[in-house]
Amino acid sequence: MESLTSHNITVMFLALGILLCMARVLGEIAQRFHQPAVVGELLAGVLLGPTILGYFSPEFSMFLFPSQGPNAITLDAIATLSVVLFLLVAGIEVDLSTIWRQGKVGFKVGIVSIVIPFLFGFVMAWFLPRTLGQQINADRLLFSLFFATALSITALPVIAKTLMDMGLYRTDIGMIIVSAAIFNDLVGWMVFAIILGLMNTSPSHGNHIIVTITLTVGFSVTMLTLGRWLIHKTLPFLHSHSQWPDGALISFAITIALLGAALTEWIGIHAIFGSFIVGVIIGDSSNLREHTRTTIDHFVSFIFAPLFFASIGLKVNVLTHFDFQLMLTVLLLACTCKLAGGVLGARWGGMSPRESWAVGFAMNSRGAMEIILGLLALKAGIIRNRLFVALVIMAIITSMISGPVMRCILRQAKKKRLQDIVSPELFLPELKAVSRKEAIHEMTLAACKVVKIDQQILDASIWEREESLSTGIGKGLALPHARLNDLRKAVVAVGISRTGIDFDSPDDKLANLIFLILTPINDPSTQIEITSEIARIFREPQMVERFLRAKNFKDFLAIIKHFNNIKLKAS
Amino acid sequence: MESLTSHNITVMFLALGILLCMARVLGEIAQRFHQPAVVGELLAGVLLGPTILGYFSPEFSMFLFPSQGPNAITLDAIATLSVVLFLLVAGIEVDLSTIWRQGKVGFKVGIVSIVIPFLFGFVMAWFLPRTLGQQINADRLLFSLFFATALSITALPVIAKTLMDMGLYRTDIGMIIVSAAIFNDLVGWMVFAIILGLMNTSPSHGNHIIVTITLTVGFSVTMLTLGRWLIHKTLPFLHSHSQWPDGALISFAITIALLGAALTEWIGIHAIFGSFIVGVIIGDSSNLREHTRTTIDHFVSFIFAPLFFASIGLKVNVLTHFDFQLMLTVLLLACTCKLAGGVLGARWGGMSPRESWAVGFAMNSRGAMEIILGLLALKAGIIRNRLFVALVIMAIITSMISGPVMRCILRQAKKKRLQDIVSPELFLPELKAVSRKEAIHEMTLAACKVVKIDQQILDASIWEREESLSTGIGKGLALPHARLNDLRKAVVAVGISRTGIDFDSPDDKLANLIFLILTPINDPSTQIEITSEIARIFREPQMVERFLRAKNFKDFLAIIKHFNNIKLKAS
Repeated sequence: MESLTSHNITVMFLALGILLCMARVLGEIAQRFHQPAVVGELLAGVLLGPTILGYFSPEFSMFLFPSQGPNAITLDAIATLSVVLFLLVAGIEVDLSTIWRQGKVGFKVGIVSIVIPFLFGFVMAWFLPRTLGQQINADRLLFSLFFATALSITALPVIAKTLMDMGLYRTDIGMIIVSAAIFNDLVGWMVFAIILGLMNTSPSHGNHIIVTITLTVGFSVTMLTLGRWLIHKTLPFLHSHSQWPDGALISFAITIALLGAALTEWIGIHAIFGSFIVGVIIGDSSNLREHTRTTIDHFVSFIFAPLFFASIGLKVNVLTHFDFQLMLTVLLLACTCKLAGGVLGARWGGMSPRESWAVGFAMNSRGAMEIILGLLALKAGIIRNRLFVALVIMAIITSMISGPVMRCILRQAKKKRLQDIVSPELFLPELKAVSRKEAIHEMTLAACKVVKIDQQILDASIWEREESLSTGIGKGLALPHARLNDLRKAVVAVGISRTGIDFDSPDDKLANLIFLILTPINDPSTQIEITSEIARIFREPQMVERFLRAKNFKDFLAIIKHFNNIKLKAS
Repeated sequence: MESLTSHNITVMFLALGILLCMARVLGEIAQRFHQPAVVGELLAGVLLGPTILGYFSPEFSMFLFPSQGPNAITLDAIATLSVVLFLLVAGIEVDLSTIWRQGKVGFKVGIVSIVIPFLFGFVMAWFLPRTLGQQINADRLLFSLFFATALSITALPVIAKTLMDMGLYRTDIGMIIVSAAIFNDLVGWMVFAIILGLMNTSPSHGNHIIVTITLTVGFSVTMLTLGRWLIHKTLPFLHSHSQWPDGALISFAITIALLGAALTEWIGIHAIFGSFIVGVIIGDSSNLREHTRTTIDHFVSFIFAPLFFASIGLKVNVLTHFDFQLMLTVLLLACTCKLAGGVLGARWGGMSPRESWAVGFAMNSRGAMEIILGLLALKAGIIRNRLFVALVIMAIITSMISGPVMRCILRQAKKKRLQDIVSPELFLPELKAVSRKEAIHEMTLAACKVVKIDQQILDASIWEREESLSTGIGKGLALPHARLNDLRKAVVAVGISRTGIDFDSPDDKLANLIFLILTPINDPSTQIEITSEIARIFREPQMVERFLRAKNFKDFLAIIKHFNNIKLKAS
C-alpha cells in the first residue's frame, strides 16, 4: 500500500500547523478590526503561499507547500475535506423556513446575478478575446463561455463564512443571499460541466450534461423529501439505541455528509453541494441536539474552515504574470456585472435600495471555485497565465471586500454592548453588604473611583429611584440605575452577593447579581439597550447560577461574550 | 499545483463515509456485547479491506481503497492525521499526578515487558531464521533484530483506546499501563530507528541514532518543563484576548499538537509521540476549559479514532500468504513473551497477581505500529510475505483480545446501574399528586403493574418507612424506598412533579424528582448501590433542573447515561 514517508509526514504536520496558526491569528486580528475572520484567513494563505513567502524564501515555501508529489495531494485532500465539512455546518445553520419564505427573492437575485454577468462576459470575451487573455489557438466560443462563467460564478463557502462572521447568517437578508448563492452555484457548476465536456477534459466517469442536470435535481428533491423524512426517523432511533447518543449523532452527521459529498461529486457538481444539502436536512431536524450541533460547529469553524480558506491563497503566486491593466479590467468588469445583477435582482425581489446593495456585494465575492475553474482552463490551454492571475486576484479581492462593504452599507448601528462597558475595576465578586442600602452604597463607592462623581449625590439619586420602585426584577437579579448629568459615557458596576440581598423582587428571591447602571442623562437609549441586553441574557435558564460560578472578571466576561456570540449567530 | 481529480474526490469521500459508518456501527455492536469499541473498529477495517471485501469483490475493494495513487496517499494522510489527533486526546486525558505517583511501577513494567520479548525474540530468530520467515539472502542479524523488535513493540493508541472504552483510562492501573506503554513505545521506536539505519532505508533527513535519542529526551524534558510553563501562561492570555475563547483554545491545542507531531516525526520517533506529549501538558493546565476539552474529545473520539482504527485492517490481506503454523508460532511466542514481561514487571512493581495479569494483557496488544514495522521490513527484503501476514494477524488478534480478557480478569463486578433498572413504564413525567401520601400512592400504583405485589401492602410498607424518617433528601429530591420479600430484582419508579411535593426535606425545598426504590429483602447491597448512584448524580449542580427539562423517558435516560459515561471516563 502506497504510504507517506517520514519526510512527507513531517512536512504535512508542519504545514498544517503553520497554516492553521497563521489563519487563526490573522482571523482574530481581522475581527479585532471589525472585519469578518475570513478576510484574515484568506490573507494567511496569500502570505504563506508563493506570493509572499515564496518570494522571500522560495525553498522554504516549496518545502512546506510543494506543488507536486504526495504533500501537494495531501494538502489538497485536507482542504477539500475541510470545505465539505464547513459546508455541512453552513447547511446545518440554514433555516429552511426562512428559505421557503425568502426563496422567491433569493431565486430572483440568483437568476439575475448570473444572467447579467454571463451575457456581458460572453459578449466582451467574444469581441475582445486577445485583450482578455485568450490563449493563442484556443477556441473562441470555449474562451467566451469560460470567461462568462468566470464572471458569473459566486462562492457559497466565502459568502456563508462572511455572513456567519458578521452574525447575519440566519437573518432574512442572510437567507436571501444564501439561497441566491445556492442557486447561482448550482447553475454555475452545471455550465462548468458543459465547458468541461466541450474541453474534453471531463472526469473519467464523464456524465453527460443532461444526466448531470437530471441527477442534480433528482438528488436535491429526494434529499429534501425522502432524505429529510428518513433523517427525522433515524435521529431519535440513534438517540435511544446507542451507547452514547451524542457520539452516534456526530458520527451519523459526518458519515451522511461524506456520502452526500461523494454522490454530488460523482454527479458532476461539486462535493460541497452534497454535504450542504445533508447539513440542511440534518439541521432542520429538531432531534439534532444542541450539544452535537455545537461540537461539530466549533471543531469545524475553528479548525477546518480556517485551513480551507487559508489554503486558497496557497494555490497561486498572484505576483508573477501580474498584468495590472488586465487585472483591473477583470476586477472592474466582474464587480460591475455582479453588482448590477445582484442589486437589480434584489430590487426586482422588492428589497430596499440599501439592502439590495448589500446583497450585490455579498453575491460579488468569489472564492476557491473561481481559482479551481481558472486552473482547469489554464491547464486546458484556453487562457493565458496573466488572465489566470487576474482571475485569482479578482477572486481574492472580491471575497475580501464583500464583508467590510456590507458592514458599511448596512451600517450596523454599533449598539453599546454590555461586554464593552463592564470593566474589572467595577467588578465586585464578593459584596459584603447584607441590605439593599448597603449594597448600593458599596457599589457606588466603587463606581465613584472611576467616574469622578460625588459619591453622596450618586448614592442619593440611586436610592431615590430605588425607593420609588424597587429594581429587583426577580430570578436573583437587581438593576439599580440612575441617569446622571455629569456623565460622559455609560458605566456599569457588577456586584455579586453569594448570600443574596433583599431587593424586594416580585418573585421574593434574594438578589445575587446586581448591575448598577449609570448612563448620561442626554442619552436615554443606552440605558434601554443595556437593560434589554441584560434581560435578554437572563431569559436563558440558569444564567444567574452560571454567573455566580464566575471566579473573576475574566470568567464573567467570557459568559457574556459566549452568550452574545451564540445569540449573534442565532439572531 | 497537483490536485485531486473529480474521480479521486468522489472515491475519497465514499471511502471515508463507508469506513466511518462501518467502524462506528461495529464499534457500537462491540460495546453492546460489553467489548471495547476498538474491537469493532478494527474488525471494520478487516471486513472492508482486502481480506473480506477484497476477496468477494476485488474490483470494488480496490476502487474504494486503492493501494497506489492519490487515493492511497489521501487515506494514509487522513489516517495519520487521525491517530495524531487521537493521541492528543489520549494525552489530554492523562493525569500527570497519577503518572508521577505510578511512574516507578510503569517504568518497571515498561522495561521488563520490552527486555524479555526482545531477548527471547532475538534468540529464536537467530537460531530459527528460516522457520520464522526470514527472506532468502536477508542479513541474519538484521532479521533477528527486526523479529525481536516486532515481538517487543506495543501499541499506545490501541491500549489507550481500550482503556478509555473500558472506563479504566484514568484509574491507577490505567495510568501504570499508559506510562509503561509510553516507555515501551519510546524504546521500540528508537530500536526501530537503529534498524532503519542498518537497513539503509532511513528517511531522507536521516538523523543518527544518537541524535535521535538525544533529541527525544531533549524534546520530552523541554516540553514537560518549559513547554508546560509556556502553555500555563498562554491559555489565560488566549482566554481573555480572543473574540471567542473556546475557539481560540481549540485552535491553539490542535496547532500545537500538529507542530509537536511534525517535530517528533522529524526527530525520528513517530508523530503520535509529539501530539501525545502536547496533549499531556495542555490537559494538565487548569486553564483548559471543560467545553474545549469536550469538543475536541467528542469530535476526535467519534470521527478520527474510528477512522484510524478501521484503516489498520485496510492495509493488508490477512488471508493470502496465510501460513497457519507460522501464524500460531508467532502469536504464541508474542503473547507468551509479552505476557511474561508485563506480568513479571508488574509483580516486580508490587502489584497483585490479578492486576499483573491485566497489565500483561494490556501490554500485549499491538496495533498499527506492528503493521508499519512489518511493511518496512517486507519492502526492505528482510522478511517473507508469510511472516508479514503472521505479524499482522498477531497484531490484530492481540489488540482484540486485550480488552475482553482484561475485563474478565478484573471481573469488574457488574454493579446494578440505575440506567439498567429504570424503565419507560415506571417513568411518570407528570405526577398529579400534591401531597407526599398521594405521590407515594400514585407511584406504587404504577409499580404494582410491573411487579405483581399487592398495592396496599406496598403502599403501607413504604409509608411506614416514610413516617419513621422522611426520605426527602433535599435539592428537590426524594427517595422513598422499601425492601420486599416477594421481589426478585430491583425496581425503580421515577416520578416528576412540576409543582413540587413536600417531603419534609432538610433544606425545606419541595421535591420535584421522586425515585421510588424497591429492592429484594435478601439483597441489601443493591439498594445501597442505587442510592449512592443517585447521590453521586445529584452531587453535580443543576441536575434536578436538567432532569425536569426531560420531556420523556428517552431524554431522562440520556441524562443518566451521559452522566455515567462522563464519570466512567473520569473515574
